[in-house]
Amino acid sequence: MMTNQYQPAPRSRRERPAKSALTRQGIIDVGLAILQNDGLNKVTMRRIAEALDTGPASLYVYVRNTVDLHAQILDALLAAVTESLPVDGTWRDRVKQLLKRYLLVLFKYPEIAQMTLTTHLNGPNYLALLEHLLALLHEGGMADHDAAWASDLLLLYATAVAAEHSPRKSSSQTADEDQVFFATITTVDTSKYPNVTRLGDELFSGSGTERFQWAIDTILNGALNPPHVETEQKNV
Amino acid sequence: MMTNQYQPAPRSRRERPAKSALTRQGIIDVGLAILQNDGLNKVTMRRIAEALDTGPASLYVYVRNTVDLHAQILDALLAAVTESLPVDGTWRDRVKQLLKRYLLVLFKYPEIAQMTLTTHLNGPNYLALLEHLLALLHEGGMADHDAAWASDLLLLYATAVAAEHSPRKSSSQTADEDQVFFATITTVDTSKYPNVTRLGDELFSGSGTERFQWAIDTILNGALNPPHVETEQKNV
Repeated sequence: MMTNQYQPAPRSRRERPAKSALTRQGIIDVGLAILQNDGLNKVTMRRIAEALDTGPASLYVYVRNTVDLHAQILDALLAAVTESLPVDGTWRDRVKQLLKRYLLVLFKYPEIAQMTLTTHLNGPNYLALLEHLLALLHEGGMADHDAAWASDLLLLYATAVAAEHSPRKSSSQTADEDQVFFATITTVDTSKYPNVTRLGDELFSGSGTERFQWAIDTILNGALNPPHVETEQKNV
Repeated sequence: MMTNQYQPAPRSRRERPAKSALTRQGIIDVGLAILQNDGLNKVTMRRIAEALDTGPASLYVYVRNTVDLHAQILDALLAAVTESLPVDGTWRDRVKQLLKRYLLVLFKYPEIAQMTLTTHLNGPNYLALLEHLLALLHEGGMADHDAAWASDLLLLYATAVAAEHSPRKSSSQTADEDQVFFATITTVDTSKYPNVTRLGDELFSGSGTERFQWAIDTILNGALNPPHVETEQKNV
């Protein structure tokens, strides 16, 4: 029999009290504990049912399937993103703050970040994040249409940055790959790749934080200059 | 014994000719055939060695490991992106054309798109894509530093759009999810989520192509207006 580390050791039916009522929050809490200890692919309906001493069928009232289960767990994690947000700073600073918090949650759970790319989140905490972001873009004077599409682009960008950190790779593997990439870029055939050669150093410049902030500023500035008005700086 | 559908049926050693020489291209071709027929997780060193009637050890001269194998296969697929590119149109149109071609390759192989997020590509065809992109940004008058970082952001964006199309989900599952998301957004608590309510329709407006083009224009316009010069349109 599997060891059940998420609740007290089983006692005989006779001496143990009535089971506590099943709740959505109880299911999510057990799911989070399994996620932290054993990884996302162990967070299954069967495993949660076992931990709660019930059958998987009783969970379906609260959770539709494994995808929905994972989405609800992510939403629970996102509660931290909008909790006691600072009210100081420009709207732009606060956009960065908000997205950084979202990024940090996803960094802690890279498997969840990859899932986030392929799932439409719609839980209350994700909606709170979207609401805050839209409010800030409105405060910054961005037109509604552009703000709606920019919110999508900003959240997709942050999610992709987190998903780049694959859960399957160790940090030494990542460092190896970075080195191989750097070696490739700095030794390319200059006549074949003149621009890659010329920009070689810039392709690697800056810290992750600097690039993250640059990307957010770039998207914000772009969305404040509606794309249909082309900002050509040079005649071609 | 496994059926080997990627080369002629085995004959006795006595009557068959000497094995053809192992080449990098031969390995990639077999890998592509397996990818198209059986999916990415069947593209393994063992499977390829079997198809080429050799041992996995002989492959290591050309391919370091499974991750490298997959990266080389993706690079082969990317050859189509920069092949006979149109020379007409503004630099901006040609940026969109280039990224659309990249997107279409990834759309065909969603598993590859997800892998692309977590791997530093550095094959010759990826470098050609990067070279073309940097040349176009230069032609558009973008400063080198901004062009280097913008190329990263543009390629990450296109990769993320492709990775959103999970290989694990059918299109009907995606349509279901879209509907649930739409239903959620259009029925949220107005007092709690006033901006989500106000922008509800805009969050779903436009086609995939329109949003893709908008995002590229937004990033280009933003990178042409260097982020450190903040473009505030309204006092806050």
